[in-house]
Amino acid sequence: MLPLDQYLPFWNRLDPADQAAFTAAVHPRRFAQGTILHNGANDCIGLLLVTSGQLRVFTVSGEGHEITLYRLFDRDLCLFSASCILRGVTFDVTVEAERDTEVLHIPSELYHRLMERSAPVANFTNELMAERFSDVMWLMDQILNHKLDTRLAALLLEERALAGSDTLNVTHEQLAAHLGSAREVVTRMLRYFQSEGLVRLGRGSLTVTDEARLGVLSAASRR
Amino acid sequence: MLPLDQYLPFWNRLDPADQAAFTAAVHPRRFAQGTILHNGANDCIGLLLVTSGQLRVFTVSGEGHEITLYRLFDRDLCLFSASCILRGVTFDVTVEAERDTEVLHIPSELYHRLMERSAPVANFTNELMAERFSDVMWLMDQILNHKLDTRLAALLLEERALAGSDTLNVTHEQLAAHLGSAREVVTRMLRYFQSEGLVRLGRGSLTVTDEARLGVLSAASRR
Repeated sequence: MLPLDQYLPFWNRLDPADQAAFTAAVHPRRFAQGTILHNGANDCIGLLLVTSGQLRVFTVSGEGHEITLYRLFDRDLCLFSASCILRGVTFDVTVEAERDTEVLHIPSELYHRLMERSAPVANFTNELMAERFSDVMWLMDQILNHKLDTRLAALLLEERALAGSDTLNVTHEQLAAHLGSAREVVTRMLRYFQSEGLVRLGRGSLTVTDEARLGVLSAASRR
Repeated sequence: MLPLDQYLPFWNRLDPADQAAFTAAVHPRRFAQGTILHNGANDCIGLLLVTSGQLRVFTVSGEGHEITLYRLFDRDLCLFSASCILRGVTFDVTVEAERDTEVLHIPSELYHRLMERSAPVANFTNELMAERFSDVMWLMDQILNHKLDTRLAALLLEERALAGSDTLNVTHEQLAAHLGSAREVVTRMLRYFQSEGLVRLGRGSLTVTDEARLGVLSAASRR
């Protein structure tokens, strides 16, 4: 028995027959690092509930560059690997296992059938889409305004030099105050830096894990 | 009696009591050109079903520039003016009446109550969000890859010079073939040009309505 109620907030609002159908259809799968799990509109393998590892969702620009839209970690649910069941979606993304990744695979047809008649499942889907939409809006804001990331990178390197240590005892509030920004904005950028492997966030501390790439980022602010 | 069944695909799947509650709560409203209907997370006036006119939904970059995300026309439903009822949305947008605009106003609480227990309403909401998400993905692609719009603008001006007329008898397929692109991609860009007032699309024809701005756009390709 899989701990689906731990992952899916609508679980207790499914009737027993739907819970049984779900449990019968959902299976664990492993993907080796580098595997492409979903590529464009033709794939529709299903929803993937990450139980360990890391998925990267990206798009490819007209010039062939990959743009990372967001990453999914433990307990995140990958919706766009089932994009065929989502009416109104007209864009394609690619999903890659960025590390060895374990997922629970929820077949598209099963999920679609539940979503069509269950308001809790449909609203959960809506919330997932809104979260990913929010990720992309944030990214677009970053693309249009390259300043905060470069300024934060420069500030972290400065703090690191002052501390004489990779580990900084500095709060997000303090960093935000230095940058004239809001704490929420800085926290979100630090989480992005963490997902990119530039820093590691702890409770009340922050460790620089890739000084070189922070240096490249901070240099961009002087262009 | 408002013709709500003409606008809302879930109408016939509501029970009579919900239809009555809907009809009682929904009222026409007019907004003069230039009115800001919704501005950020604090507003939550409700969903706005456009019956005439034009709404513009935009965000403001860190540097203070407005970026138009999409426009809404007759029969479109503005969802983000009710963003408070959408769990998972963490970005803010502004909605402006770009022309004198008439809408049917659907109060947030009413819609939220229906969405929570009706799968058809929840799935319709999901589809709306997916369409707007698709608009933004398309825009991001444009921002990352400025080529097609400039090339299409240059091609339209060239065709106009050849025809000796603002009205061009050219199909989207022919334009796509000239640009080495797909018809769908060119059609979407032409619709965007139309919403920006650069061209007017007819059946089997296309009229250039703002030669000067097309000229500015086409010049960008030579940077």
